[in-house]
Amino acid sequence: MMAGNPLAGSGHIAAIDLGGTKILAAIFSPDGVVVSRAKKMTRAERGPEAVVNRMAATVREAALDAGIDPAELKGIGVGAPGPIDVQAGVVRVAPNLGWEQFPLTEQLRERLGLPVFLGNDVSVAVRAEHQVGAGRGTRTMVGIWPGTGVGGGIVVDGVLYSGMAGLAGEIGHMTIKAGGRKCGCGGRGHLEALCSRTAIVKDIARQVKRGAKTELTKIAGDDVGAATSGDLAKARERGDKVVIKALDRAAAYLALGVAGVANLLNPELVVLGGGVVEALGDPFVDYVTELVRKQPLHAATGDLRIAKSELGDDAGISGAALLVRQGTD
Amino acid sequence: MMAGNPLAGSGHIAAIDLGGTKILAAIFSPDGVVVSRAKKMTRAERGPEAVVNRMAATVREAALDAGIDPAELKGIGVGAPGPIDVQAGVVRVAPNLGWEQFPLTEQLRERLGLPVFLGNDVSVAVRAEHQVGAGRGTRTMVGIWPGTGVGGGIVVDGVLYSGMAGLAGEIGHMTIKAGGRKCGCGGRGHLEALCSRTAIVKDIARQVKRGAKTELTKIAGDDVGAATSGDLAKARERGDKVVIKALDRAAAYLALGVAGVANLLNPELVVLGGGVVEALGDPFVDYVTELVRKQPLHAATGDLRIAKSELGDDAGISGAALLVRQGTD
Repeated sequence: MMAGNPLAGSGHIAAIDLGGTKILAAIFSPDGVVVSRAKKMTRAERGPEAVVNRMAATVREAALDAGIDPAELKGIGVGAPGPIDVQAGVVRVAPNLGWEQFPLTEQLRERLGLPVFLGNDVSVAVRAEHQVGAGRGTRTMVGIWPGTGVGGGIVVDGVLYSGMAGLAGEIGHMTIKAGGRKCGCGGRGHLEALCSRTAIVKDIARQVKRGAKTELTKIAGDDVGAATSGDLAKARERGDKVVIKALDRAAAYLALGVAGVANLLNPELVVLGGGVVEALGDPFVDYVTELVRKQPLHAATGDLRIAKSELGDDAGISGAALLVRQGTD
Repeated sequence: MMAGNPLAGSGHIAAIDLGGTKILAAIFSPDGVVVSRAKKMTRAERGPEAVVNRMAATVREAALDAGIDPAELKGIGVGAPGPIDVQAGVVRVAPNLGWEQFPLTEQLRERLGLPVFLGNDVSVAVRAEHQVGAGRGTRTMVGIWPGTGVGGGIVVDGVLYSGMAGLAGEIGHMTIKAGGRKCGCGGRGHLEALCSRTAIVKDIARQVKRGAKTELTKIAGDDVGAATSGDLAKARERGDKVVIKALDRAAAYLALGVAGVANLLNPELVVLGGGVVEALGDPFVDYVTELVRKQPLHAATGDLRIAKSELGDDAGISGAALLVRQGTD
């Protein structure tokens, strides 16, 4: 279907993956290859304008590292957290950043004098997985991205499905356990409240409070609520039972989410990505897959494939680059 | 977008809505109007071949009533329960009928010598709501049909979305309450196990077993598990508290399902239909809507509309007729 690399195109472009903690930038060459990277802390507490300055600086650093004048870039793609008003180039709300109705496209364009293409971080990552990752060649695919939250994206007939207002894919806010754990958004028993990193470390923190002993306190310190997905992976490798049980619970809920979405959408493929999946790797994906297979799959059937993200941490910048190469549609 | 009535076309056609209890048939005129109807009991216990004979007889009866020789019909559309292999014209499995891998298209064609177009009963009903009912003019719509089970359908970019194998829309088998009530399919806490008629009457039967008094025993007899949606509506009108509470619980779960699907798909419109919704009417739909509005709607926002099926009991035959007018795609 696709001739050549969708990341290739005329000129060099920049891609930014804007996270609550880090800003990643990369320069893609005309043949679609990453030729340089740069990284800075986000420092969201300094306010949105300061973050935009840091984003611009990260792009300049990556461009200079690639030996390119930033003014020569053809455009900048940005994957940002939160629901995005794609037409207006506005981040509607990003709790991680403390942003509301922030005109990121305009602000970044002013700093760098270049066209800016904005999308939701997970949507662009799922789009990248579909075009140049695990989902190549599929017509119908769902991406589920457990990390700080749980994002998602849906590919229908080969195109990222955006819904009425470009907001589709909020799979983390589907109720999986009515009356269950409170979600950051105020809902209860949402997928995000059950299998995000935030949910997993809260689960472990509750066990610790009840007196459970876990390696995680040695790895991440006494505030296990601040543990990263990497910390969880380390504790698991040390055979820590408290962490392993919490991960198994999260996997079980994630499997219910995968099965439910598969019954609703009958996709060829479900791709699992995001911070939790990257850190925990194949054993986690294999376990989730095993649990999905035990669920009654009506619309899914045995043909359903479940795969780990191929692009890993590069899914975000690859998707942001695709925004520039293909526009935001 | 659409010029004229999508149900119009060359010649008369027949449409069948095949249910576990009843077979409904209708004849549509070239201008897309129902000119006659016939109804027979399904009598699934007599076996699939007997059911096909009754389907053929119902079509003949409706045709004769319209003054048309059945041989002059241009084709027969059928909405049948269960997942359907649309290409092969096979009902994969229909527990209500006791069918497995039954070649309905071929069997009915042999009886009547006419082209047969087969689809899932709820899928075709949702398609009809989209084209000639509550969803006219929408691009993105979800239909949720609580009845004996809970079926569904999704319209993406103006077309019924079928998924990888034509099986999409099994919204009743999304987990809403992990570890909750057992579903007919073996899963737990599925939407179908929480807000289908079957689930509602089971809920009431449990209360009765614990000593609760309900009008439903007077209306439907001592086996409240056999109560129809109409019986539930009657008991509600008499102010029966046990029934009202059970309906409120079902509405609350249905609202969680609607909100979750809205967050996932960001549709313009959710249409509620099916036996439960037809019997309980606007008060039920209004209450569900009120509860959905109280949920955190990320991808849904205030723009989401929720509406009751406009076609009501005719959604099934209208959708079956559209299969003939437009083919099964």
